[in-house]
Amino acid sequence: MKKALDSNKIAQIGIIVRDIEKTSQAYADFFGIEKPKAVWTDGYEKAETVYKEKPSNARAQLAFFDMGSVQLELIQPNEEPSTWKEYLDTHGEGVQHIAFITDKMKERVDAMQSEGISLIQKGEYTGGRYAYMDTTEDLKVIFELLENDK
Amino acid sequence: MKKALDSNKIAQIGIIVRDIEKTSQAYADFFGIEKPKAVWTDGYEKAETVYKEKPSNARAQLAFFDMGSVQLELIQPNEEPSTWKEYLDTHGEGVQHIAFITDKMKERVDAMQSEGISLIQKGEYTGGRYAYMDTTEDLKVIFELLENDK
Repeated sequence: MKKALDSNKIAQIGIIVRDIEKTSQAYADFFGIEKPKAVWTDGYEKAETVYKEKPSNARAQLAFFDMGSVQLELIQPNEEPSTWKEYLDTHGEGVQHIAFITDKMKERVDAMQSEGISLIQKGEYTGGRYAYMDTTEDLKVIFELLENDK
Repeated sequence: MKKALDSNKIAQIGIIVRDIEKTSQAYADFFGIEKPKAVWTDGYEKAETVYKEKPSNARAQLAFFDMGSVQLELIQPNEEPSTWKEYLDTHGEGVQHIAFITDKMKERVDAMQSEGISLIQKGEYTGGRYAYMDTTEDLKVIFELLENDK
């Protein structure tokens, strides 16, 4: 495999959960910190979510904890097709991805795809966009790329 | 649950693998960095490994990648009973734990146990000791505590 990413700084760890309120409360209690407010990802009209090459109405509730220089992200998916729902259905709750920030999203995704790493899901969020890449076979966990607008 | 840890800074992410040489090479290639040398954990006479309250001859090969302020740790277990082997047998390859550093190991483990979080496995390494705690039900991933000698 050719070099695929410039930075190896882990930005986020994503954990799929069934009940984000309950698990957020457990994290808050465990560390003695405030429970963050869970927020819904945007619907298709804004997020333009594509999962396995098809538009999807997938949404998720997200809650973020700053843990050193890494964010821990709890994710409770809705019932629509997504990498989040697929993980929950096949693995149950647990760590689904680790995320890296890039400023060359298209170039990185194209390069990975040319190396046989498929794009699982992509979408827009306010201020940026994400792409989940199927690095599971080689790297044993899904990698997410994040590109934030400047 | 009462507050159980002082620091919420993630120190390590542990990934269980079947072939540490192959996966280390894949990570090295992906990020364009040197492949680290995998090292065996100590045998029982030094590590004093205890898994589910019984002494174990469990060992593992470990390879570490510095990824920002977090270390990514690849772990290939041997065939003896361990939390690593159990994860591989029940989940396959993937993220098995996240680790936090403490300077009050015994106090923290005792406090968690009194809250119903069991100690899965513990052991010594050169310069310190570790404890895997069964935080899976509450926090959806195993937490490892690391205490390094000063």
